[in-house]
Amino acid sequence: MIGILGGGQLGRMLALAGYPLGLSFRFLDPSPEACAGQVGELVVGEFLDEGALLRFAEGLALVTYEFENVPVEAARRLEGRLPLYPPAKALEVAQDRLREKTFFQGLGVPTPPFHPVDGPEDLEEGLKRVGLPALLKTRRGGYDGKGQALVRTEEEALEALKALGGRGLILEGFVPFDREVSLLAVRGRTGEVAFYPLVENRHWGGILRLSLAPAPGASEALQKKAEAYALRAMEALDYVGVLALEFFQVGEELLFNEMAPRVHNSGHWTIEGAETSQFENHLRAVLGLPLGSTAPRGQSAMVNLIGEKPPFAEVLKVEGAHLHWYGKAVRPGRKVGHITLRRDGLKALEEGLARLSRLVSELPWEGRV
Amino acid sequence: MIGILGGGQLGRMLALAGYPLGLSFRFLDPSPEACAGQVGELVVGEFLDEGALLRFAEGLALVTYEFENVPVEAARRLEGRLPLYPPAKALEVAQDRLREKTFFQGLGVPTPPFHPVDGPEDLEEGLKRVGLPALLKTRRGGYDGKGQALVRTEEEALEALKALGGRGLILEGFVPFDREVSLLAVRGRTGEVAFYPLVENRHWGGILRLSLAPAPGASEALQKKAEAYALRAMEALDYVGVLALEFFQVGEELLFNEMAPRVHNSGHWTIEGAETSQFENHLRAVLGLPLGSTAPRGQSAMVNLIGEKPPFAEVLKVEGAHLHWYGKAVRPGRKVGHITLRRDGLKALEEGLARLSRLVSELPWEGRV
Ligand SMILES: Nc1ncnc2c1ncn2[C@@H]1O[C@H](COP(=O)(O)OP(=O)(O)O)[C@@H](O)[C@H]1O
Ligand SMILES: Nc1ncnc2c1ncn2[C@@H]1O[C@H](COP(=O)(O)OP(=O)(O)O)[C@@H](O)[C@H]1O
Ligand SMILES: [Mg+2]
Ligand SMILES: [Mg+2]
Repeated sequence: MIGILGGGQLGRMLALAGYPLGLSFRFLDPSPEACAGQVGELVVGEFLDEGALLRFAEGLALVTYEFENVPVEAARRLEGRLPLYPPAKALEVAQDRLREKTFFQGLGVPTPPFHPVDGPEDLEEGLKRVGLPALLKTRRGGYDGKGQALVRTEEEALEALKALGGRGLILEGFVPFDREVSLLAVRGRTGEVAFYPLVENRHWGGILRLSLAPAPGASEALQKKAEAYALRAMEALDYVGVLALEFFQVGEELLFNEMAPRVHNSGHWTIEGAETSQFENHLRAVLGLPLGSTAPRGQSAMVNLIGEKPPFAEVLKVEGAHLHWYGKAVRPGRKVGHITLRRDGLKALEEGLARLSRLVSELPWEGRV
Repeated sequence: MIGILGGGQLGRMLALAGYPLGLSFRFLDPSPEACAGQVGELVVGEFLDEGALLRFAEGLALVTYEFENVPVEAARRLEGRLPLYPPAKALEVAQDRLREKTFFQGLGVPTPPFHPVDGPEDLEEGLKRVGLPALLKTRRGGYDGKGQALVRTEEEALEALKALGGRGLILEGFVPFDREVSLLAVRGRTGEVAFYPLVENRHWGGILRLSLAPAPGASEALQKKAEAYALRAMEALDYVGVLALEFFQVGEELLFNEMAPRVHNSGHWTIEGAETSQFENHLRAVLGLPLGSTAPRGQSAMVNLIGEKPPFAEVLKVEGAHLHWYGKAVRPGRKVGHITLRRDGLKALEEGLARLSRLVSELPWEGRV
């Protein structure tokens, strides 16, 4: 039995990928509604509740996680008893934007200019270093664009400083990027690595809405650059499992934005769009099995369903559309499902996206890839 | 919640295909070990036990089945209370080889010559009509080559008559076929139909060992012929769901052998090898959703794992190999899993099969497709 910290859709999809390998799954999640509980055993409890941790850990072969804000302390406690992959260190790095950017900078990976902010003086100093416009972000706990503010003037920066709590922040120079891309990488227990093709990601309201995979027009050189960055990070962390890296693309440059030490929303297309899904490859990696081919099959688009349930029958009428509904209650702003559109070429993909854009709101899609 | 009569690997794979559509599943099976119980709710009970049927049926949206020897009586009782697809009539036809062949003959579909046998006189008459060699089969309950005998002489026929119980039999002329093929067809609640490409099936010891999909070298005309036969059967039965038809191919002729009113072992390749799997399409059909594309993706081979657990790591090293382990105890002759090998062309497929044939015993594979 595999233990998974977190019981959301990522855990659910890990389990669905793992059953064909003959595995079984137990989840730990604070919510009794956690949607992975519909497809596996659910232990309801806080991550730091020792009783819950004990019930969760009993009889497990190994532990992994699907939520990067699992308290590092919980991961460390489990690491003492059971194999835990990816290593708790990766959680530590990913949970703190300052540590994360410093870590990648130390590996020689370009990042936007950044500066730690714990008060008005840091802010002043930071604005000098990174310039305006800039983003002031909480170092910890932000997601889906929450916990950050775009500031255009010193005044706005001071306001944002107050609004975000005055300390534990990071100021980043605003990058006028061409687009955002992500790389899904995976490393096995023996150091074997594999990389999916770069994915283009489009956000709306701070939330990922649309991924295009492989990222249209991405050069071989760009792919190799991203892979080299990911490899450095994985080796430095002695990483095992799927690692997602988000970048800003500026010309042929990639600036590291953030990492997720887990399977990632921008890798959902791999279920239908790649030879082996990110979910299966994560499991293969943590189990010490050989990694599967990451080769894409045709051209895919992943459309997130945010706070809305589209008419299933209409969606399924679209050729190459694959529906993934997570079994969660629909609430505004909540990721409740996704659609992967898989077609053999970009033109067919565009046709399908045009149809989906009439069924799904807030799809950042202007008629052409 | 969808109810499934039978809790074997077919039910398990139906559930795994249905979770992404936001469905949940309950199985009825006489065995507490039924492997679908690992991925959904399991009601343990005999199909004709009224208490078990009541517990099973409670709150279900509809019922389908994964086992064609469900007592028709159980299906009929459920049909009175809930939507049940495919119709119980299809079960009735499929459970009796005489009825089945008579039914297809009535639709103008060619079959091997056959004759009902309920005693020595019928046998004599039958041998006159179908010739020798011939197959004497029980009308009901046979599977994986069980309940049948190949007879080469009148003497052998009389012995087989005794061994098979003397009555309730069917005598069939032996067909010197070129190969065996199957067609997976699906019909929705509105009469919409779709067909997968013909599959070539190779048996060993009466059990399906290897399927090649699409069947190498199958002509467009052969495909159309099989589709026309399936369409007639589905319309006559007012069928809803996936229907599998097995044929003997002789030149460009197809002789109907048997049908399965359910998802079928020779359709497992569709999970990775087709745009929409047979499991998802069965669910779409019974739910009244539009059917998904049945287009193949490259060339696939499905290798059954019969009574043996191959070394997983070795299997997963083979490019394009996808492992499906059903979570069943390994016993001789028991289907415990399958491997789908998906590659972009026949040559690559042959290379992969050569590697798999060193990991799986009794693979009817002589080095060339
Ligand atoms: N330095 C930056 N320059 C330009 N845009 C940025 C910058 N930082 C963040 N963004 C934008 O805000 C989005 C969310 O920021 P991110 O740091 O990735 O936080 P989250 O954890 O909420 O995803 C990014 O995907 C990008 O569109
Ligand atoms: N009439 C026949 N002529 C030649 N071979 C036959 C005939 N009937 C059955 N067989 C062979 O026996 C196998 C099993 O027979 P079948 O009737 O399909 O029973 P089962 O339900 O066990 O699959 C077939 O796949 C085929 O290889
Ligand atoms: Mg982000
Ligand atoms: Mg058969």
